Amino acid sequence: MISRLAEFDISATNQSMRILDMTRELEVIHTCAATLGWDQETYLPPAAHEHRANQLAWLSAKGHEMQTSDEWRAALEDAEDKNPGTDPKLTANLRELRRQFDRATKLPVELVTRASKCSSMAKHAWAMAREASDFSLFSSSLDELVEIAREKADHLGYPDEPYDALLDSYERATSTATVAKLFQSIEPELRTIAASAVERSKQHAVKLPQGPYPIEDQKRFNQAVAESIGFDFKAGRIDTTTHPFCTTLGPRDVRLTTRYDQQDFTSSLFGILHEAGHGMYEQGLNPDDFGVPSGSAVSLGIHESQSRLWENHVGRSDSFWELWFPKACKVFPQLGSMQFDSFLSYIHRAAYTPIRVEADESTYDLHILLRFSIERRLVTGELSVDDVPAAWNELFKLSFGFEPENDRVGCLQDIHWSMGGLGYFPTYTLGNLHAAQLFAAAKRDLDVAMGIVQGNYAPLLRWLRHEVHNHGATLDPADLIQSATGSKPGSCDYLVHLKNRYL
Amino acid sequence: MISRLAEFDISATNQSMRILDMTRELEVIHTCAATLGWDQETYLPPAAHEHRANQLAWLSAKGHEMQTSDEWRAALEDAEDKNPGTDPKLTANLRELRRQFDRATKLPVELVTRASKCSSMAKHAWAMAREASDFSLFSSSLDELVEIAREKADHLGYPDEPYDALLDSYERATSTATVAKLFQSIEPELRTIAASAVERSKQHAVKLPQGPYPIEDQKRFNQAVAESIGFDFKAGRIDTTTHPFCTTLGPRDVRLTTRYDQQDFTSSLFGILHEAGHGMYEQGLNPDDFGVPSGSAVSLGIHESQSRLWENHVGRSDSFWELWFPKACKVFPQLGSMQFDSFLSYIHRAAYTPIRVEADESTYDLHILLRFSIERRLVTGELSVDDVPAAWNELFKLSFGFEPENDRVGCLQDIHWSMGGLGYFPTYTLGNLHAAQLFAAAKRDLDVAMGIVQGNYAPLLRWLRHEVHNHGATLDPADLIQSATGSKPGSCDYLVHLKNRYL
Repeated sequence: MISRLAEFDISATNQSMRILDMTRELEVIHTCAATLGWDQETYLPPAAHEHRANQLAWLSAKGHEMQTSDEWRAALEDAEDKNPGTDPKLTANLRELRRQFDRATKLPVELVTRASKCSSMAKHAWAMAREASDFSLFSSSLDELVEIAREKADHLGYPDEPYDALLDSYERATSTATVAKLFQSIEPELRTIAASAVERSKQHAVKLPQGPYPIEDQKRFNQAVAESIGFDFKAGRIDTTTHPFCTTLGPRDVRLTTRYDQQDFTSSLFGILHEAGHGMYEQGLNPDDFGVPSGSAVSLGIHESQSRLWENHVGRSDSFWELWFPKACKVFPQLGSMQFDSFLSYIHRAAYTPIRVEADESTYDLHILLRFSIERRLVTGELSVDDVPAAWNELFKLSFGFEPENDRVGCLQDIHWSMGGLGYFPTYTLGNLHAAQLFAAAKRDLDVAMGIVQGNYAPLLRWLRHEVHNHGATLDPADLIQSATGSKPGSCDYLVHLKNRYL
Repeated sequence: MISRLAEFDISATNQSMRILDMTRELEVIHTCAATLGWDQETYLPPAAHEHRANQLAWLSAKGHEMQTSDEWRAALEDAEDKNPGTDPKLTANLRELRRQFDRATKLPVELVTRASKCSSMAKHAWAMAREASDFSLFSSSLDELVEIAREKADHLGYPDEPYDALLDSYERATSTATVAKLFQSIEPELRTIAASAVERSKQHAVKLPQGPYPIEDQKRFNQAVAESIGFDFKAGRIDTTTHPFCTTLGPRDVRLTTRYDQQDFTSSLFGILHEAGHGMYEQGLNPDDFGVPSGSAVSLGIHESQSRLWENHVGRSDSFWELWFPKACKVFPQLGSMQFDSFLSYIHRAAYTPIRVEADESTYDLHILLRFSIERRLVTGELSVDDVPAAWNELFKLSFGFEPENDRVGCLQDIHWSMGGLGYFPTYTLGNLHAAQLFAAAKRDLDVAMGIVQGNYAPLLRWLRHEVHNHGATLDPADLIQSATGSKPGSCDYLVHLKNRYL
């Protein structure tokens, strides 16, 4: 029997390993919490939420206590002092650990514990509010979450506005102003593309043959697709939840979830392609460095680039369905009545839907821009929690031309805020931009391009492993994109991609 | 939002509460481990076992560290000093906590960590060995587990033989010699009853109408039955595992598992009745005292009495099936071709099967007597691990007249040893004895007796809540039986029950 905790050997000197061993131990605590969090979303009985909140609060406090202890500080300083600077990975790991330590020590343990408990209970309140389409059931929780977010920002400090500090925990080395400027710059073209795509879909409406597409068949089909693009089921699995997600419970334990629509098998399938993209990033990180920055994902924007790449650039491509459409017809016989071209039009259809996770590529980013605007103002205090439904509906009408039918399909649709995830949403659009830039670069490799034409995605996954996954968090997101694609992060490849597909 | 950790108020003095708060915190750690353990059995991907072992080892070490700390000792001593002795529950709690502390401080943290890691990996090795029916894949793990058990016994101390110390952790206030004597005293009658029951079943063989009994239908039927006898699904659930079990992840979170045989719906159903019996005991403990002895199960023998009572005394009774047989016929139409009397003969059939969990009531205890004999000799060193398969087969032949076909259905069938659970098996037969004694006593209550005749088990559950569950671990098992039934634990009611049903 081997304990991974004891066999880590990244550095030459014994003394400087202590901080890395402690980092790995901290990751054991984090993955315990991740396991309890996964269970909370998938299988937890309804009466058990309060105790689960206590468990997560305890783990969160233990982790924070460890990460902010004098022992941790001493081990980190010791490693920094003794780092000969000859090993770039060790140097990058220590730089990242220093950044994390400085962030963590700014938050009092009381606040961390309160945040963890609040989000555990808030997730439950959100689920009930969403079910009942009654924002009032969630508003006091959201009030507390926003207050906690502001307190966090105050402790962390920020250059311009409190949202900077929140954004930084999901996407390092950027700022609210940078993101706002980028979003403003692409918004006009996004609106044009969306309007045109929606108009075209209206004129050439295509329907999927009538269901049911039995859930058990969808599960089998999704599993086959996920396996074929490279998701490893020996080190992962798929379960069912209200809101799809991907979570990592260990170096070889990546859990995906999705939800099923009996009338449309593509809904769960694209959900799985998306989450499997996240999952393959996690599975592609170096398991020997698990928990250490060099074996960790760098940012949510880069994470999202992986899910979007597999969902949209691979999963919605013609060549992908040349392979999978005949197989889908065997699993779901009613599909046989559909022309292949019609099916492609169906999966490229565009519409102004109220639900973000059901939105098509051409309209998706408009949902993000709306959320970014609302949560930014919530945090500054320009917008009060009670005014969220009205603000949401007003902004939605400006972008989409109508108001959501109710809060269930409006401001209650997403789980993120209930988890305390203010500052998270912009990373979705950053991910779209990165995905297009990475996919365009990957296709300049002949093997990758050939593979894609033939429906063989192993060369693409190898390219991503080499250019993205292997780096872990040793490069900043912008540097990682530069290193992988030869250019700074930009919006050209994404806008070209959208225009090619939707105009 | 309420934190249970902060609102405990069992005692009058503030000072003496510290130890109870710490006990509750320790239970948070234990239930984190229980959640990870449940996931390990139900949903963990195959490549993830090593990391799960690290997680469980970390939690186990944290728990042991806390439970054996100077702070714990000081808090316990402080509470003992200040206990006015006027509150019997507080006195019982402190007595039990003292007993647990004395046991825990005898085990070095290194041994506890090693035991946890070893059993995590051993469970995996056992599952593979069982699958391949190859004892050699498990023998080195078992070797280590036995060595650890001996070391534990040496640290804990024992009056006569090391097995005493192991048995005491499952069934307090008894001894190996007492159990051995009790088992020897009932063995001749058990053999007579078994032989006669098996012979009668041979002469009047009854078969269940041919399957399949679809698994999804079994799940629905089992759920309805479990709900009707009082298992609360708001505070629990059922999943599927190789080996059925019940585990508690929180005061309102009790998880049952079972396995399905498509040819025989009664297999999973009696599994669920059994596990639901355990589960209703856990759900009947005082949630406000969760983690504290007064809110904890007292022993495995008493636990098993609850599962056996619901499985055998309720679930295999004529009156139970007068209610449920017509419902079963609706769910499984092929049952309609079977006479009710034949169905009763079917569920009362007896046979010498190699598998303990498939054994009928009349032969079950012979399986336990065999395991008790083997593990007792393993621990003393009279029997070596390599000789377990041969010893198993020899003993089995003596009791049942034939040898198991292979180790898969022989010495590899049970999960217990792989979890380090040496000393556990005798509690099954103790549970059978207690179940019969409790059921006989309960039926002396008119409401209970009337309810049973009418298939209404609410009065029986109320009686058990009052006489057994409510006491938690404040009484020793023997005293609990005496208090509930008016007599010391004995074998009369059990032998009478078996003779009535099987002779």
